[in-house]
Amino acid sequence: MAIVTLLTDFGLSDPYVAEMKGVIRSIAPNVEIIDISHGIEKHSIVMGSYILETAAPFFPDGSIHVAVVDPGVGGSRKPVVIACDKGILVGPDNGLLARAAHKLGFQNAYQIQNSQFTRTSVSPTFHGRDIFAYSGAKIAIGMDPSLAGPTLQRMVRLEIPDPEFSKDQVACRVLYIDSFGSVVTNISESNIERFRFREVTRVRIRSKGGGQFEGVTTNSYSEIPHGLFGLLLGSQGYLEIALKEENASGKLQVKPLDPLELLFR
Amino acid sequence: MAIVTLLTDFGLSDPYVAEMKGVIRSIAPNVEIIDISHGIEKHSIVMGSYILETAAPFFPDGSIHVAVVDPGVGGSRKPVVIACDKGILVGPDNGLLARAAHKLGFQNAYQIQNSQFTRTSVSPTFHGRDIFAYSGAKIAIGMDPSLAGPTLQRMVRLEIPDPEFSKDQVACRVLYIDSFGSVVTNISESNIERFRFREVTRVRIRSKGGGQFEGVTTNSYSEIPHGLFGLLLGSQGYLEIALKEENASGKLQVKPLDPLELLFR
Amino acid sequence: MAIVTLLTDFGLSDPYVAEMKGVIRSIAPNVEIIDISHGIEKHSIVMGSYILETAAPFFPDGSIHVAVVDPGVGGSRKPVVIACDKGILVGPDNGLLARAAHKLGFQNAYQIQNSQFTRTSVSPTFHGRDIFAYSGAKIAIGMDPSLAGPTLQRMVRLEIPDPEFSKDQVACRVLYIDSFGSVVTNISESNIERFRFREVTRVRIRSKGGGQFEGVTTNSYSEIPHGLFGLLLGSQGYLEIALKEENASGKLQVKPLDPLELLFR
Repeated sequence: MAIVTLLTDFGLSDPYVAEMKGVIRSIAPNVEIIDISHGIEKHSIVMGSYILETAAPFFPDGSIHVAVVDPGVGGSRKPVVIACDKGILVGPDNGLLARAAHKLGFQNAYQIQNSQFTRTSVSPTFHGRDIFAYSGAKIAIGMDPSLAGPTLQRMVRLEIPDPEFSKDQVACRVLYIDSFGSVVTNISESNIERFRFREVTRVRIRSKGGGQFEGVTTNSYSEIPHGLFGLLLGSQGYLEIALKEENASGKLQVKPLDPLELLFR
Repeated sequence: MAIVTLLTDFGLSDPYVAEMKGVIRSIAPNVEIIDISHGIEKHSIVMGSYILETAAPFFPDGSIHVAVVDPGVGGSRKPVVIACDKGILVGPDNGLLARAAHKLGFQNAYQIQNSQFTRTSVSPTFHGRDIFAYSGAKIAIGMDPSLAGPTLQRMVRLEIPDPEFSKDQVACRVLYIDSFGSVVTNISESNIERFRFREVTRVRIRSKGGGQFEGVTTNSYSEIPHGLFGLLLGSQGYLEIALKEENASGKLQVKPLDPLELLFR
Repeated sequence: MAIVTLLTDFGLSDPYVAEMKGVIRSIAPNVEIIDISHGIEKHSIVMGSYILETAAPFFPDGSIHVAVVDPGVGGSRKPVVIACDKGILVGPDNGLLARAAHKLGFQNAYQIQNSQFTRTSVSPTFHGRDIFAYSGAKIAIGMDPSLAGPTLQRMVRLEIPDPEFSKDQVACRVLYIDSFGSVVTNISESNIERFRFREVTRVRIRSKGGGQFEGVTTNSYSEIPHGLFGLLLGSQGYLEIALKEENASGKLQVKPLDPLELLFR
């Protein structure tokens, strides 16, 4: 049974997500639809990109991920299907899909032009239903992604600066803040070794506004001492800054893409 | 595989939706349960009616739509099953179902009285679980809706005044405000031609409180000029008033059922 | 088709719930995953316990309930599988599971130690994905719960004092406040007869802060007179205190575990 996942910024009170599911099930009666998240902040491509790149790799190979955070719907941004080693992505070419495509093993991207990939009538305000859900369902019942349209020569990517490492410090960015208030940085697992993470225990955190905070490296939330921030390799493969049963982002006063400096001692 | 959809004002944190699903799956092991929305405002029959009438038509023919926004539960309002050309509706007869029944092609409504359509023990505070989910599941495994009970002679309908058109203006109502802040009016697609929507470009919007706003007709959100409201045929088949990446309802200061006047120039 | 239900305090915007579902579906392609709730207040074992104990019994026998409200993740609390007459519970041994286990007919609890019940790499911050979802999926495809590890001699239980009954009054606790504002007490159905619930009609409610309120016994929300609180046997099997289409908890100013006194006249 093919799996189609859905990620949008539509929320769960409007009829929009249900209409996407209705369209998918009308085409593909045996597909299984699984929600990744519909709680993306309205128009936040950065947040949508993060949720998609972290969640998609956990689904079985061949899963079809339909993602819609699409402030430019009806404008010039292109609708795309991206074939990857471990799955297929469908959505707007606005930066939402590129990081997930990289993680799933990018093969090729196709601009959706074939009318067999869209509903007969396409609303200029709801490509999520009329193009993306529909395309995903068509692929789920066997249409090859390469039939969607011409190969896209260059995908739109999010501009997130890489972390910069020096001897005793690293300048990084906030990639995401989760609903517990944990601050996910853009320091990936493979980069963590570069700044002696396993050796140091004390870290000073400098946030954008000039605030300075004391932290320690740790393995789990429950080990974080009271009054200190914990720095740990989080479950999503990035360095996280957290407090024990408290909201770290609120105290650090940061939001996604804000710069942070970590100083090791 | 039969589909049962669910729409309620129960939210997703309480155990109520899960109990409905447990009851359905205990009766109908092969049914697929799809949520339309559980984010209806508490007791808002108007909002529930809108979400149901817009989402239900996108599901495959024969789908069973269980809808529960039921402030009168345990009182005198009747539990009903409505057979339609394109699906079956189950819920309280309080105005929630009538517009969706019309859209799905109303055939007949039956008052639920047959004890085979209800759990052995019916809580007077949770007909959603003990009558509506149960009835929906029984229909999903093959019971005919007409067995539910006697034909209902007259269904309760929402009183939403029709829009009134004159030469250069239309008096309409707010039908719904979506989570992006777009204001859906009760001017349906078939009525749009009546006020020269395709010809005019400038529109003045007068809200209840006397506020006046300038708008333009447009096709998509991304085309709306900064500082102006866009009027467009929305994806739900109604005229919508929106701002580009901003909350239109907040600026218009309107809520569902409020009157609006549109003046064309 | 086996059913795996999920209950967490993760919310629906983060990638965490989707990752649990991806892990489950990668192991158990034919399992059906049903959400009980992901709207548990962060770290609220009391709320999670209530939602789990009320919802789980409505699912078919043999359902596997994976529950994760786990402030001590990565610390010394034990991961467990609990075999019951009517289902299987999987989660942290921190009080979350005990009341549900009692309702489902407790048989035996096993501490998860067998590496076949956990992902190859276990994040110290996300046992929900790497241990609990994984264990639930393994059980869903046929592994016996007793293989998880050694029998747990003593489970952690929530300390919720029993109600105390005297001739004309009862001292009870708030067990839960639902999203309508109805106040669920810890007076269970079997206890209700002990305080002449069916005979009395007028009840005085004393809340912790000294507030006094007048109530009447009733059967349904719609029968509650304006200006009075209704006391009724709620759909979850506990005595509830409610207002008609208003928020009772806001007026009583109570929260879970707060004491309440009910005086009958």
